[in-house]
Amino acid sequence: MLTSVLIGTGNVASHLFDAFMDADNIGVQQVFGRNTMALEKFSKHALTTTKSSEIIDADVYIIAVSDDAIEEVSKIVLNKEGIIAHTSGSVPMNVIQHSNSGVFYPLQTFTKGKKVDFSKIPICIEARHDNHLEKLKTFAQNVSTAVYEISSEQREKLHIAAVFANNFSNHLFKLAEELCQSEDLPFEILKPLIYETTHKLKHLSPKAAQTGPARRNDIQTMQKHLDGLENPVHKKIYQLLSESIKSNHEEEL
Amino acid sequence: MLTSVLIGTGNVASHLFDAFMDADNIGVQQVFGRNTMALEKFSKHALTTTKSSEIIDADVYIIAVSDDAIEEVSKIVLNKEGIIAHTSGSVPMNVIQHSNSGVFYPLQTFTKGKKVDFSKIPICIEARHDNHLEKLKTFAQNVSTAVYEISSEQREKLHIAAVFANNFSNHLFKLAEELCQSEDLPFEILKPLIYETTHKLKHLSPKAAQTGPARRNDIQTMQKHLDGLENPVHKKIYQLLSESIKSNHEEEL
Repeated sequence: MLTSVLIGTGNVASHLFDAFMDADNIGVQQVFGRNTMALEKFSKHALTTTKSSEIIDADVYIIAVSDDAIEEVSKIVLNKEGIIAHTSGSVPMNVIQHSNSGVFYPLQTFTKGKKVDFSKIPICIEARHDNHLEKLKTFAQNVSTAVYEISSEQREKLHIAAVFANNFSNHLFKLAEELCQSEDLPFEILKPLIYETTHKLKHLSPKAAQTGPARRNDIQTMQKHLDGLENPVHKKIYQLLSESIKSNHEEEL
Repeated sequence: MLTSVLIGTGNVASHLFDAFMDADNIGVQQVFGRNTMALEKFSKHALTTTKSSEIIDADVYIIAVSDDAIEEVSKIVLNKEGIIAHTSGSVPMNVIQHSNSGVFYPLQTFTKGKKVDFSKIPICIEARHDNHLEKLKTFAQNVSTAVYEISSEQREKLHIAAVFANNFSNHLFKLAEELCQSEDLPFEILKPLIYETTHKLKHLSPKAAQTGPARRNDIQTMQKHLDGLENPVHKKIYQLLSESIKSNHEEEL
């Protein structure tokens, strides 16, 4: 069994803790956090501490704190021999100034209180040394079937891609909801369409799945839509994304 | 039983035909189209014709042709007494110049050859007269449990909302795929995130589900992402959508 210490008590830390506890061959021996209250929920299943001097030895230290705190927080375990891995999509591995540094980045959006099935969540791992990479891989494979070796450079692009795929598409759902509300229509009416939009990707590439007036270069409908949009930001988004779709399908027109 | 004639032989017509054939108390008596080849797939289960003079009497005529053909095509049944309903999201009901005009708009994205479960697809109906609206409602309720009475004005906004929710979000998936490819990463790695993005909407509003650097106004990460984007269109989209998210969450910052 691989042993671990979890550093951090927030949303990602909570989800990782649950996943590690459910996994067969890994254990969370201890959780470190500065806030006693936040540590409480972990204390039933693991040791907890607010003192860095009390942190125990483990194979892997998982740092699940906010991006800008990683470097500072990693210093409390720099005297340890285990792998020290952060969980961020956008922070390079080398901010952890230790030859045992690594990354254990679960590529998913975590909602507080909503348990997720980790078995299919891609886990992107990185380590300075091959033997650490192997150990981190074993660790990750106990949690998920989708483990990828990803460099810091690749991870940076992947994180941007995740922003487009998740943050931005979710925001478009928000704007669609606003448009419904402006006509007293329930957002519910759009949900089957939204679910089908992502379901399609099981069988089709996003390019093949593309439909709508911009793909057809249906100028009349696009102009009618632009006239129908009152909010200037909505108009700008409509124009920019339509232009981008058009240029992606130019060879078909 | 309510009888119907389907006018049109394309992708939407095919999906509607299947749905009508599966429904209990409605029948498709005939399919009209200009193309003999395209009519073939319908001919096993219904009469077909290429001659407008041969169109039979029915309770409902469903016009499933491209938006700009609706007005012209509707003229071939203007001598009929049944309801004449088009299936478009963005065309006003009154382009059909008949007191029996109506709309039967299924709010979904239809992929050729991929059968969909119509029972949950929202169907937006509209008619000039109350008794026609009632009949169209009965017709629609035989196909789906989600039937909405929607005016042409509402439908126009709803169609724009659908473009944001489906066309534009799908395009963001395309851009995310491009970013993956630029680093030799498989698009597969993003799919669990994409599925979770829409799955979240079963429990949360899009606003509550929003995460990411723009929501946190994490200027450092956003700048790093912008620096990491090479394509100027990607940069513009990143900026515009991030600004829009920020202004949506200003009160939290």
